[in-house]
Amino acid sequence: MKVKRIDISLGGSKVVILNSKDADKLGLKPYDRVKVVNEAGKSITALVSITKTFINEGEIGVVKEVGESLGVKDEDEVKVIPSAHPSSWQFIRKKLKGEKLSRNEIYYIVRDVVSGELSELEIATFLLAEYFHGMSIDEIVYMIEAMVETGVRIEFEETAYDIHSIGGVPGNSKVALIEVPVVAATGLLIPKTSSRAITSPAGTADTMEVLANVSFKADEIREMALKTRGLLCWGGTLGLAPADDIFIRVEHPIQVDPPSQMIASILAKKVAMSVKYLVVDIPTGKGTKAPTREYSEKLARLFLDVSEKLGITLRCAVTYGGQPIGYSAGP
Amino acid sequence: MKVKRIDISLGGSKVVILNSKDADKLGLKPYDRVKVVNEAGKSITALVSITKTFINEGEIGVVKEVGESLGVKDEDEVKVIPSAHPSSWQFIRKKLKGEKLSRNEIYYIVRDVVSGELSELEIATFLLAEYFHGMSIDEIVYMIEAMVETGVRIEFEETAYDIHSIGGVPGNSKVALIEVPVVAATGLLIPKTSSRAITSPAGTADTMEVLANVSFKADEIREMALKTRGLLCWGGTLGLAPADDIFIRVEHPIQVDPPSQMIASILAKKVAMSVKYLVVDIPTGKGTKAPTREYSEKLARLFLDVSEKLGITLRCAVTYGGQPIGYSAGP
Repeated sequence: MKVKRIDISLGGSKVVILNSKDADKLGLKPYDRVKVVNEAGKSITALVSITKTFINEGEIGVVKEVGESLGVKDEDEVKVIPSAHPSSWQFIRKKLKGEKLSRNEIYYIVRDVVSGELSELEIATFLLAEYFHGMSIDEIVYMIEAMVETGVRIEFEETAYDIHSIGGVPGNSKVALIEVPVVAATGLLIPKTSSRAITSPAGTADTMEVLANVSFKADEIREMALKTRGLLCWGGTLGLAPADDIFIRVEHPIQVDPPSQMIASILAKKVAMSVKYLVVDIPTGKGTKAPTREYSEKLARLFLDVSEKLGITLRCAVTYGGQPIGYSAGP
Repeated sequence: MKVKRIDISLGGSKVVILNSKDADKLGLKPYDRVKVVNEAGKSITALVSITKTFINEGEIGVVKEVGESLGVKDEDEVKVIPSAHPSSWQFIRKKLKGEKLSRNEIYYIVRDVVSGELSELEIATFLLAEYFHGMSIDEIVYMIEAMVETGVRIEFEETAYDIHSIGGVPGNSKVALIEVPVVAATGLLIPKTSSRAITSPAGTADTMEVLANVSFKADEIREMALKTRGLLCWGGTLGLAPADDIFIRVEHPIQVDPPSQMIASILAKKVAMSVKYLVVDIPTGKGTKAPTREYSEKLARLFLDVSEKLGITLRCAVTYGGQPIGYSAGP
């Protein structure tokens, strides 16, 4: 088929678009997989999207990532061969049935999430299986290790400390601006990365950006942290635990955020920053992520059990989150 | 924004594509919803897909269905306003938590599935909630009634009979070619609609098509059935229980087929054809949809309980399905 390159997101990052007539001939349905082979014999597996008119018969629409991996340009010839699910899909189905996953099985799922082998529908299935069946302490630890392994890791020559709030309280984004210098003033190294706003008016990185630039490269962070002891930057472009961004992107439309995934998300970024001592703040109260004292204690227990296996010394602070922090919210 | 019309499937049938800069300005993420208003003030709610280059800043890509509903063409001006989830999404979340749904709640879900208000991710969430929590007899009945109400219904002046196999056995597609004339020969009216191949080499409609045309309109079917007593046609383009096609399209990539949905799928099409007496064949054995005798009896019980509430007289035949039917499979 003849290549036609397009830039668009279609429920997955590795997608090709076929005309419905070609799809019928090949027996393909939306979200089935194909192996696309270029003239040099190089191949990539992609998810199928189907159109009646946007792509003509004999043409294949390839999104940016597929085009770049294959090194093809418009009008190039490629072969298209129906292909099977990656093995990680069998592990997602295993979890769906309520079975426990091994270290390797979780690694393959996370790897295929990061590389774009799994579609958003398949990732959503995994998150919902996690929501229904929960994850054991071991499974959460495997998840964190896999998320760290598939991303960038920043190491320091000395012990790193951190403080993290699970959030959910308006005005929370200013707390780190006080915490970080306090900890650094005692002489401890606190290289804190934070996020921009997800659902709130401002994330910690947004608030900090009012005072200083927050976008740095891994090398710059290593250098600055050792010089200033305390650091507050945006984690967004560092590539720490990149699976997390994809999980969050899929969690958003289905409004599901299993506690096991929340813990993995937070701790994976800390492990990637080589943090060894961590305080986790769990704001508790109406409207927060931990509406009752009972729930926050369960969450704290999970944080403690998981961090112990990761070799992180962790303390949880269950704090009152029933009203906004300070007199204003936003950057 | 300026309209740019495109024909492509993007995880939902009502989709608009925004440039990532416009999406950021409006605080929109993939699968969020917007109200798109044309110059005459007519509006439609659509799901958001985001691109960096395919659609320029200030442009909005609209898929065929959105373009037609709004009556807009390339370069037309539309307003784009962030919008909330439809109420049906709250009912899906209710089911996700394990609560029972009312007749109205299920109706709204099915209506929004058919009209394209719900994204594939949201429909998948509903199907997985159904997979995990099951559905009560009442919920299945409400589901069937909603699926029938949102589609075409064909009525006959006399009682209609039917025979249906849940399938899963190779070679099954030829059985109806014998059953239909046998039943019709006794003088009973049997207006059977069937499907094309889903996973097998041939569906009943494919096999029948070797002998005769199987694509007809509702009027033609009404006329022919009364004349010939027996009829075997393709249900595909009739618009009977159209929600079913969409559920099946989403079930396929996540490989989930809850028994409650299978029963709803079969019985909704029978109710839409005004069938009053029905035999359901449940092939049982290794490799079929009912691997054990115990499971097929559970399934048969469900069929009986649901059909009773629908006013259909139903009998189940639990048959041996451990080997192919006849000497060949395919059309």
